Amino acid sequence: MKKWENNIRRTVPYVPGEQPKEENIIKLNTNENPYPPVRGALSAHLRLEFEKMRLYPDPEARELVEALEKYYGLGGGQVVVGTGSDDILSLCFLTFFNSDRPILFPDVTYSFYPVWAQVYRIPYECPPLDENFCIRPEDYMRENGGIVIANPNAPTSLGMKRSEIEEIVRANPDVVVIVDEAYVDFGGETALPLLEKYDNLLIVRTYSKSRSLAGMRIGFAMGNRELIQFLRDVQASINSYSLTREAIRVGAVVLEDEETFQKNRSAVMDTREWSRGELEKRGFQVMDSQTNFLFAKHGSVPGQKLFEELKRKGIYVRHFDSERIRDYLRITVGTGEQMEQLIRALDELLI
Amino acid sequence: MKKWENNIRRTVPYVPGEQPKEENIIKLNTNENPYPPVRGALSAHLRLEFEKMRLYPDPEARELVEALEKYYGLGGGQVVVGTGSDDILSLCFLTFFNSDRPILFPDVTYSFYPVWAQVYRIPYECPPLDENFCIRPEDYMRENGGIVIANPNAPTSLGMKRSEIEEIVRANPDVVVIVDEAYVDFGGETALPLLEKYDNLLIVRTYSKSRSLAGMRIGFAMGNRELIQFLRDVQASINSYSLTREAIRVGAVVLEDEETFQKNRSAVMDTREWSRGELEKRGFQVMDSQTNFLFAKHGSVPGQKLFEELKRKGIYVRHFDSERIRDYLRITVGTGEQMEQLIRALDELLI
Repeated sequence: MKKWENNIRRTVPYVPGEQPKEENIIKLNTNENPYPPVRGALSAHLRLEFEKMRLYPDPEARELVEALEKYYGLGGGQVVVGTGSDDILSLCFLTFFNSDRPILFPDVTYSFYPVWAQVYRIPYECPPLDENFCIRPEDYMRENGGIVIANPNAPTSLGMKRSEIEEIVRANPDVVVIVDEAYVDFGGETALPLLEKYDNLLIVRTYSKSRSLAGMRIGFAMGNRELIQFLRDVQASINSYSLTREAIRVGAVVLEDEETFQKNRSAVMDTREWSRGELEKRGFQVMDSQTNFLFAKHGSVPGQKLFEELKRKGIYVRHFDSERIRDYLRITVGTGEQMEQLIRALDELLI
Repeated sequence: MKKWENNIRRTVPYVPGEQPKEENIIKLNTNENPYPPVRGALSAHLRLEFEKMRLYPDPEARELVEALEKYYGLGGGQVVVGTGSDDILSLCFLTFFNSDRPILFPDVTYSFYPVWAQVYRIPYECPPLDENFCIRPEDYMRENGGIVIANPNAPTSLGMKRSEIEEIVRANPDVVVIVDEAYVDFGGETALPLLEKYDNLLIVRTYSKSRSLAGMRIGFAMGNRELIQFLRDVQASINSYSLTREAIRVGAVVLEDEETFQKNRSAVMDTREWSRGELEKRGFQVMDSQTNFLFAKHGSVPGQKLFEELKRKGIYVRHFDSERIRDYLRITVGTGEQMEQLIRALDELLI
């Protein structure tokens, strides 16, 4: 070993779902949206402004920040944007969780949380979900250095009520509580109305799911001005310009096409319920999803086996090889046609 | 003060140059390139692939990484890309500088270095530049936790010889030495040939200056496979996808238009030398620049005053209110026409 290796920060990175290069696969493994973000007419306005690319973006991304504040009915200074919600969540860990007490998040949740905690050397503890994979608010009422809750939770797909989130926020006035609402647009209950009441609450969202823009890397946080300013300061101490000129503009413009947004959400939710029914008919136990994916286990065939056999048929879903969820598949809700193909493939496998 | 504020990481952010919204100003304050990155024919191929934006980018950005490895004659695994070189440099600080000994960088250099050190709580010391604003290699031959050298240096615009960089790298085998070559394409001597000899050397570059793509946020590091892998692991532990689909593609495609790249570099260097002569005729002392900016002080008029009066005339340059360089202006090299306007404006101010 070379001596300079002594000073290296060693990490065990988060492993994202595969991004296969083949064109003809059915990709249901990373919770992307099957529909385009805006109707055709608007997308013509979104051509790359190539002639301006020689210039830096606005470091404050005001066009996007102001569009989001308006869209969500918030005041000036209540939004900060970043390179996807992973960037924002990572910044939150770095900014808010500097104490010796452990931060808390569930044992089964977004598997990036423990990675950020390790990178930034933040102690953490993971209260287990109950036997139905639900979060128990009372587990988050002990001394801690901060709390992160994904609501709805991933990969379980289950949502909590706003009143349960409020119990947690209210019981923890001395730490920052982050609610990761990546999937909330697919039927979850947002904590947004709580922002006025609690200055320790921060809500994180992404454009990668309901907004159909995973490839543009846009995420944002909403909270009181003071919390947001702390986040902005740390962000500006790492990278002055984290969003491209294009992401700032496109992120603002797509908010204008509410009709397409609502239509896409509804289509995903309708297809989800149809798919759930079909899976249940075929011997799957499927969680009651409030997200754009289904978390399902088959009565007799192991998750790993189904995952591999579907992949062989060109259908990518996600399987997590960790203790409590080894039997499950996480299946992104695609188009109706894609889900029909999934069901047909399962019919062949499960004969 | 609220109790949750106890756990906040407080920072004093880097302050980037202004990005004014007015269209008719002459913007010579953030070292952007005045020319487009590729010729017209190629730029038509670079239209936003909007229909694919619903999908995540390739987390490894292989298209771009492989194009860069090929362009610079490197082997597989020797390049990592990020959201601008600020993102890459920040990752380097986090990844490589985990010791109790101070890292070293000059007292006058890119003012983001001390900010990253503070954010990540890395001790640092700043050997002063000599009286001619040159870096003395011998100052970097004491015990340290790592070294960062901008070559050419900013805002001084002065370059070091490769042999001087080699002295520093050779004398510090036990730490990582980062050479920030943001400006090297404008006449500097790159450390690239040293990569084969020294496994503790890392070179960082950006697309924001010579590649005319500041608005796309693309930076990269080149080094031995092992160093690059450590960086990639930390990067993948913070954000799985830091570049947009567009940045990955555009970053790769522009490397194909070598002719435009060379033409732009030459034009900037020619305009720089013309501007330098004109400034000297008007009583400025101008450093011998190897960058796309000039660092100049007037014989009698203070830097702050010139900065403000030029701004009033719609010409933005950069002024740093810090001790050793208070008298100087940092002037980005624009088009020939922009520089003529600058000179005319100075003629009016200096009567």
